[in-house]
Amino acid sequence: MPGLDDDECRQRLAEARHAVLGTIHAERGPDLVPVVHALVTPDVIALPVDRVKAKRTVRLARVANLARDPRATVLVDAYDDDWEQLWWVRAGGRATMHHPSGPAIDALAERYDQYRLPGTIDALILLDVERWTGWAA
Amino acid sequence: MPGLDDDECRQRLAEARHAVLGTIHAERGPDLVPVVHALVTPDVIALPVDRVKAKRTVRLARVANLARDPRATVLVDAYDDDWEQLWWVRAGGRATMHHPSGPAIDALAERYDQYRLPGTIDALILLDVERWTGWAA
Repeated sequence: MPGLDDDECRQRLAEARHAVLGTIHAERGPDLVPVVHALVTPDVIALPVDRVKAKRTVRLARVANLARDPRATVLVDAYDDDWEQLWWVRAGGRATMHHPSGPAIDALAERYDQYRLPGTIDALILLDVERWTGWAA
Repeated sequence: MPGLDDDECRQRLAEARHAVLGTIHAERGPDLVPVVHALVTPDVIALPVDRVKAKRTVRLARVANLARDPRATVLVDAYDDDWEQLWWVRAGGRATMHHPSGPAIDALAERYDQYRLPGTIDALILLDVERWTGWAA
C-alpha cells in the first residue's frame, strides 16, 4: 500500500499552491470548488473567503453548506501523464467560519501576493483535520 | 458573473487531462479523489476503475459510496499564480457502475495510453450530468 504518513501529507499539502474543497449540499450532494490554502498548524488548514477572485454569487455555497454540515475535505493532487509521478493528499475533518485575523491571515498573505493588501480576505474557513490520507505511485 | 455556458464547460472538461471526483461517505462526509475521465456523450462522463494505478485498498471507497448515495460531482480546474488565468468546471449528477465495455472504454483508451492494453479497466463509473457550472476569471 503506497501510502504517505501524516507528516508527508502535511508537507505536500503545505507546499501545494492550490487545492479542492469538498462540502455537502443538502440537495445536490458533493460540492467541489478550487481553493487556495495555508497550513497554519499541523492540523489546521486555512481557506480564505476573499474579494479578489470574482465570484458567481455573493452568498457562497461553501459557506452555506458548512453552516448546515461542517464536514469538509481538502484534496491536493499532482497529475502527470507518467503515472509513476502521481500523488495526492487528502485532509478530512470539520470546518468552522472565523473573522479574518490572526496567524492564518498572515500565512495566507505570505503565500499569496494577492492577499498582502489589507481587507482582501472577508472571512476564514478553518478546517480542523481529523484524518490525513496520502498516496504516491 | 463570469460564468461559462454548458458547451464551454463540456469542452474544457473534455480537454482536461484529469479531474477530481467527489462522493459522499456516510460518516466522513465528502470524499474526494483524483480521477482520469472521458466525456463520452454531451452529458455522460466516464471514470475508470482500473488496475493500473496501485490503490490503497481493494474495495474502493468511491464505489462503496456510490452504492449508498449516487450523487457525484466532477471538478476540473486550472490554477495559475496569475489569478486572471483561473477557471474551473463542475459537473454534478448521479453515477452508476457499469461493466467495462462499449464506447466509454474506447474513449478512455484513446485519451490514456495506459488503457490501450485490454483488461486494464475493471469497471466503469458513468456520471449522468444534470448540472454544468463553470467559472473563468
